[in-house]
Amino acid sequence: MLEGTWYLEKHTDSLLFLHKIKRHIYHGRTAYQKVDLVEIEAFGKTLFLDGKIQSAQVDEFIYHEALVHPAMMTHPNPKNVIILGGGEGATLREVLRYPVDRATMVDIDEQLVKLCEAYMPEWHEGAFYDERTNLVFADARSYLENSNETYDVIVSDLTEPLEGGPSVMLFTKEFYQVAYDRLSDDGVLVVQSASADPYYNDFVRDVFVTLREVFPKVKVYHAPVFSFQMDWAFTLASKGRDPEEVAEEEIGRRLKDFESKLRFYTEELHGALFKLPKFLKEALPKGRVITDENPPVWFS
Amino acid sequence: MLEGTWYLEKHTDSLLFLHKIKRHIYHGRTAYQKVDLVEIEAFGKTLFLDGKIQSAQVDEFIYHEALVHPAMMTHPNPKNVIILGGGEGATLREVLRYPVDRATMVDIDEQLVKLCEAYMPEWHEGAFYDERTNLVFADARSYLENSNETYDVIVSDLTEPLEGGPSVMLFTKEFYQVAYDRLSDDGVLVVQSASADPYYNDFVRDVFVTLREVFPKVKVYHAPVFSFQMDWAFTLASKGRDPEEVAEEEIGRRLKDFESKLRFYTEELHGALFKLPKFLKEALPKGRVITDENPPVWFS
Amino acid sequence: MLEGTWYLEKHTDSLLFLHKIKRHIYHGRTAYQKVDLVEIEAFGKTLFLDGKIQSAQVDEFIYHEALVHPAMMTHPNPKNVIILGGGEGATLREVLRYPVDRATMVDIDEQLVKLCEAYMPEWHEGAFYDERTNLVFADARSYLENSNETYDVIVSDLTEPLEGGPSVMLFTKEFYQVAYDRLSDDGVLVVQSASADPYYNDFVRDVFVTLREVFPKVKVYHAPVFSFQMDWAFTLASKGRDPEEVAEEEIGRRLKDFESKLRFYTEELHGALFKLPKFLKEALPKGRVITDENPPVWFS
Amino acid sequence: MLEGTWYLEKHTDSLLFLHKIKRHIYHGRTAYQKVDLVEIEAFGKTLFLDGKIQSAQVDEFIYHEALVHPAMMTHPNPKNVIILGGGEGATLREVLRYPVDRATMVDIDEQLVKLCEAYMPEWHEGAFYDERTNLVFADARSYLENSNETYDVIVSDLTEPLEGGPSVMLFTKEFYQVAYDRLSDDGVLVVQSASADPYYNDFVRDVFVTLREVFPKVKVYHAPVFSFQMDWAFTLASKGRDPEEVAEEEIGRRLKDFESKLRFYTEELHGALFKLPKFLKEALPKGRVITDENPPVWFS
Repeated sequence: MLEGTWYLEKHTDSLLFLHKIKRHIYHGRTAYQKVDLVEIEAFGKTLFLDGKIQSAQVDEFIYHEALVHPAMMTHPNPKNVIILGGGEGATLREVLRYPVDRATMVDIDEQLVKLCEAYMPEWHEGAFYDERTNLVFADARSYLENSNETYDVIVSDLTEPLEGGPSVMLFTKEFYQVAYDRLSDDGVLVVQSASADPYYNDFVRDVFVTLREVFPKVKVYHAPVFSFQMDWAFTLASKGRDPEEVAEEEIGRRLKDFESKLRFYTEELHGALFKLPKFLKEALPKGRVITDENPPVWFS
Repeated sequence: MLEGTWYLEKHTDSLLFLHKIKRHIYHGRTAYQKVDLVEIEAFGKTLFLDGKIQSAQVDEFIYHEALVHPAMMTHPNPKNVIILGGGEGATLREVLRYPVDRATMVDIDEQLVKLCEAYMPEWHEGAFYDERTNLVFADARSYLENSNETYDVIVSDLTEPLEGGPSVMLFTKEFYQVAYDRLSDDGVLVVQSASADPYYNDFVRDVFVTLREVFPKVKVYHAPVFSFQMDWAFTLASKGRDPEEVAEEEIGRRLKDFESKLRFYTEELHGALFKLPKFLKEALPKGRVITDENPPVWFS
Repeated sequence: MLEGTWYLEKHTDSLLFLHKIKRHIYHGRTAYQKVDLVEIEAFGKTLFLDGKIQSAQVDEFIYHEALVHPAMMTHPNPKNVIILGGGEGATLREVLRYPVDRATMVDIDEQLVKLCEAYMPEWHEGAFYDERTNLVFADARSYLENSNETYDVIVSDLTEPLEGGPSVMLFTKEFYQVAYDRLSDDGVLVVQSASADPYYNDFVRDVFVTLREVFPKVKVYHAPVFSFQMDWAFTLASKGRDPEEVAEEEIGRRLKDFESKLRFYTEELHGALFKLPKFLKEALPKGRVITDENPPVWFS
Repeated sequence: MLEGTWYLEKHTDSLLFLHKIKRHIYHGRTAYQKVDLVEIEAFGKTLFLDGKIQSAQVDEFIYHEALVHPAMMTHPNPKNVIILGGGEGATLREVLRYPVDRATMVDIDEQLVKLCEAYMPEWHEGAFYDERTNLVFADARSYLENSNETYDVIVSDLTEPLEGGPSVMLFTKEFYQVAYDRLSDDGVLVVQSASADPYYNDFVRDVFVTLREVFPKVKVYHAPVFSFQMDWAFTLASKGRDPEEVAEEEIGRRLKDFESKLRFYTEELHGALFKLPKFLKEALPKGRVITDENPPVWFS
């Protein structure tokens, strides 16, 4: 039936999506954002923040596995990990698959995390209750600036830097220097970097060029996220190993313990993710350095 | 401005796309299908057939390069190539980049091909006028059944097998046997195989399983097509070489002559395209054999 | 903001409405229908049943006053009134403005009435708790067939007769004969009759022609209902007075007690409602008689 | 079929209309406005200007008859008539049904009028070629200010006064004084005045109050225009007769010659159009005077 409630998403000024809503789970507003959690036929439970799709039950595993595993595998033995953002708890879930000592998650929006905890157990799968978890409600930049801990992996799982939004100052060169300083010698930072498509890739270009100002090794990789209707970009910055030089055999060995839990990432796929379409490879160096004075510009 | 004409595409029953139309180029109907050619801000000129996006100026190169080059490179030296379907002429364009003797294109819809020739020169780039081109307006199955030529590469560039549509009988085991018989010893068949996504991948499964009944080597690969809003699947069936065993060095050498014309495919990307997400790799063997008696079922 | 939840209404096959939802109040399903109660900027609280707008806070008064008052005024002194359907309680509210002894409301959908009672007090304004109210949950046809009461006014406030829906058998000649038999000598029946527009007026034609088979005086009148996006038709069938012959002065006198509560109906407007556009006047006699064997056909 | 091209109309910020397009007739832009002429299933040929529906084949007669006849009948014997705006030629068509000596139509947009002439013969029905017609392409305000003719009826058939648009200065007190001065002693001015609905009626209130500053008799009337999805308001300002005092008998007599051509207006309907819903009658005096210094504000 065509009639009923639909979620309208403005993908771009010239492309609107209408998602048929099967079930209304939660509609409300936190101190930071508008939250709509609904069920959609093809996507299952789906979370929209401020009108943009954030995560869908049917394929959140693609995004979260693609975000976490390349970085974790690039570090030889991560023990202390921090996640910036990460509301739903699925990034935390993937990090905890490794034998880490401690996984800190810093999200500014406590209400959102509580909503995810209550309504989206399929995402966190209990990760919030793992004894290695350290859940902090704070601005991630301040938290990291004031921390004196050393991390092996930093996972930047932030919403896009909408003007005036809470994540704007978490994509700048100055912030990446803070992240660099908090990382151990083999430390790795991974940043979700929005669209990898031929038309809208300004953001990943800028993140790439900015991270190159701070880190010795910076690589962009990509994964097709079904519910985002896009090929998605991630930027991995490493103080130690090059992610493309980690042996398939090592990845296979380390995956053994939890391989059966994964649905996207494999040791064979690891290297392939870093092979970019020609247009994207050629576009990346054309970005500009994002700084506190020239913060990111988001297109919507 | 929100007001004005939009193209509504029913991606699925629960997901509608609305594309803002910037310019109307052609609206009409051929003997086989409804044709809408419009200009869209982010996509440029965009062709819709029977309400489904077929090709967009901004990224048609992704689809057409991904369709043609892996197959052409898998054959060591293709001289005689046939394209099934291929209306816009861009598949032909990519085939003609190679030193072939002859490229036959068999499309059932002459009016559509004439429209593409007149209104979409950015696609064919004059390929229709190349002296190696043999343009035939006929049902591709009959044509191949009645041919006694031998081809090195067959490119199946057909619309999805909508019930009652002209392409239904071009995806069956019986037809693939005809294709096999018309191929030379190192012959390669490539079939565009629709969505590679976690929710809608029944079609590529079935094509994969069906081709395995006929060909010794069958591999699925994928490429993210921006304007299709999806990761797209292709199935490559080979009588000779395994596509994953073609050396990067050989591809690089053969690409030299026209590398500058490509925007998606590179020798490095070739192998990566064949690395599949785990869910897709595991899903493929679960397809069913498509036969003339049990033709493909399309989900829309 | 364009993004967010919208209610899609299929007005016709070639006209869709999208209503931006400001607040979600209730989404669910009763034994008989899908219920969506939302708040919309321009309409206020708005009730949709099975995907069709039923009532909007901003202008429910137009529909309910137009439905009730012409019929009540056509009867010289209505004491016993029955409402068929009437879920929200606003028809009951308008009936109770008169010095009636008893107002019976027969609605098949108890869950819906309870939802309206709880969530839509602006409609019923306590009418459910008036001591003259007799609320019955039953099929209105059976109820009337088995009743031996005599009514002065019968108000048919039913949803459109969607195939297989509960109201189909409440628009037939046989049923109108039952209604006739239950009415007192000056008795009046009024039937909400859907669109009065030039393109979609088949239904009111049929109701008109059918009622003329049973009642001596039948008149169609109309009122523009903002939230229905249409001019709306009502059919009044009378055993006694002709509605157009009731004196403005009488109406004015009877209105005195509750005039201040009304926002649409006035004594001056009464007669004007019965003056029809020429196209509608000429179309009415072209209807066909609806019978139990040939039930109404609804266009959607 | 849901797929294909649709016209999106922003009725309000919280209500969008999508009209399925059956045939594309013309898409373009004049010096003054964006023009889209399409065919729609339920509406027939439909003209959109700057994204707003202007006229639909199926019911343009409602709007044009309602605009012209009450004014023409209020004047006892109109001989010289001027139309401000009136692009499609249908207002002219209705004026020419009377035994006038001359009908001047002043429209600023020559290209639009030529498009209407060529593509919309169902509207003008040859009115442009009547020898009594005087077609002028000019700004209507300047034209009237510089005219020294005397008119019996002035018909203001203008698009809504969108900010910066060409009609803004044609709704002010100063302009209405110019109109007054150009009218004969029994002269009548009628102004199409947008929505008559309970939520959006600010514009008709302001037009009403402004005209009362200049004319001795001012009356608002209304007609439900199907394709506008609204009850529509018109304001009639008279130097001579009160429109409600013109006898039905006189109207009937004058209609005789062309009664068969009309599909909306009848002598019986004339008076009924002036009977307003209570909410509208009470709202009208609350308008504010529109002046050159405080031009109309349009809500969209």
